[in-house]
Amino acid sequence: MNRKELVSQIRQKKSYLCVGLDTEFNKIPKHLRSDPDAIFQFNKKIIDSTKDLCVAYKINTAFYESQGIPGWEALEETVNYIPSTHFKIADAKRGDIGNTSSQYAKAFFETLQFNAVTVAPYMGEDSVKPFLEYKDKWTIVLGLTSNPGAKDFEQLTTGDEKLYEKVIRTCSTWGNPDNLMFVVGANRLEQFEKIRSIIPDHFFLVPGVGAQGGSLKDISQNAMNVECGLLVNASRAIIFASQNEDFGEAARAVASEYQKEMQNYLL
Amino acid sequence: MNRKELVSQIRQKKSYLCVGLDTEFNKIPKHLRSDPDAIFQFNKKIIDSTKDLCVAYKINTAFYESQGIPGWEALEETVNYIPSTHFKIADAKRGDIGNTSSQYAKAFFETLQFNAVTVAPYMGEDSVKPFLEYKDKWTIVLGLTSNPGAKDFEQLTTGDEKLYEKVIRTCSTWGNPDNLMFVVGANRLEQFEKIRSIIPDHFFLVPGVGAQGGSLKDISQNAMNVECGLLVNASRAIIFASQNEDFGEAARAVASEYQKEMQNYLL
Repeated sequence: MNRKELVSQIRQKKSYLCVGLDTEFNKIPKHLRSDPDAIFQFNKKIIDSTKDLCVAYKINTAFYESQGIPGWEALEETVNYIPSTHFKIADAKRGDIGNTSSQYAKAFFETLQFNAVTVAPYMGEDSVKPFLEYKDKWTIVLGLTSNPGAKDFEQLTTGDEKLYEKVIRTCSTWGNPDNLMFVVGANRLEQFEKIRSIIPDHFFLVPGVGAQGGSLKDISQNAMNVECGLLVNASRAIIFASQNEDFGEAARAVASEYQKEMQNYLL
Repeated sequence: MNRKELVSQIRQKKSYLCVGLDTEFNKIPKHLRSDPDAIFQFNKKIIDSTKDLCVAYKINTAFYESQGIPGWEALEETVNYIPSTHFKIADAKRGDIGNTSSQYAKAFFETLQFNAVTVAPYMGEDSVKPFLEYKDKWTIVLGLTSNPGAKDFEQLTTGDEKLYEKVIRTCSTWGNPDNLMFVVGANRLEQFEKIRSIIPDHFFLVPGVGAQGGSLKDISQNAMNVECGLLVNASRAIIFASQNEDFGEAARAVASEYQKEMQNYLL
């Protein structure tokens, strides 16, 4: 999916919502857990219930890897089930030396049919570039994350800026707004304006709304650009809105609230 | 495996060699590729041929993930096949917000029976700590890596030191030499002494010997401590020493050269 198609989906649905399929086995409704294909069945219901309200799904690989081979099977089934109209993100935070990052790029862009993968920047250029070599695929580099640990290294000062600013500025020269996005946590409002000035045209993938406390209004009013430029992710707040048999309807209700609010900011 | 047991294995075998099972499908000998279980059969032969010469095996997850489900099956078979006398490293370079890193820790320490996993430090404390909560399991944090991209961020100056020094100094306070190691590239000789002064007692996992040009002699003479404190990894130089039917013998010959040289430095 290229940028034009993504922006078109956003305009059409009046939504820049990404639903995070952080499907932790122990949190899915009890009536599903005895199903040998429980994780996929859960995801299928969530996708069916939310697909007209969101433009992207984000699969965090950790929740699947923890289940071993059945987890990878569920991940594969899920990515194949997501409609091709939707932007499919592997939230994998990979990164290794060049020849090894190429294998990760192959894993997510060829073996699995994701549109995008999140990448950790610590190891530098040759660890990021192999992901950027795929046409119409996207690399989403960690910029300023939403977790408490962001203060430990990301927010250190180096030269006349913070490390996350340096990371964003440097990585932005390795790709362009058509193949590169950055993760910026929703609870980093005070930094949004500065980051937007460094990368006016890039999309941000914004986690941290909902369970982690970020405000959709603040993000939207401070970081949207002419093409929207935002994919705002909510995971637990949507997928675990109910732990009962009505979890699909409950997820839809929460996703619908997000979409309705987004519709206002997109005007 | 605890530190005492690891050091005992090193003394017994007079080796601190780690064999990296970077089993790229297209590089395994042609006669094996038609076997539906080719990757595991290759690894099995490498393990059988080298196990008395090394103390650790390192499985880089990228080469398995790129093969999809069959790759994960081969990874699982391989880790189960490695003898319990050997230190089993998942070179996965994972890291995410706290509740998600917990899932990665579960994946590698419970679902799969690894002794250690490599972790990327960018996201800070809550991304690293879940790995440190397992008794007799090890977290190996990226310090100064061997690849060209290490110059982009790892070697930036922050305060009065380099970022990688800050990362090593800070992370070392989250664990101890019994549950924490650091990745230090073999080609970073000029920095070895400084890093050893920051963490005199920790083990270093040292990639970059062989294909990447680091010198075993230089590393050993500059960074060994009283308990050895080094696991030196070689991957391609050993496992792809021959692309013919004699690949097991060829791998053994190279591993044996490393072990013989290590024996001298351990005296």
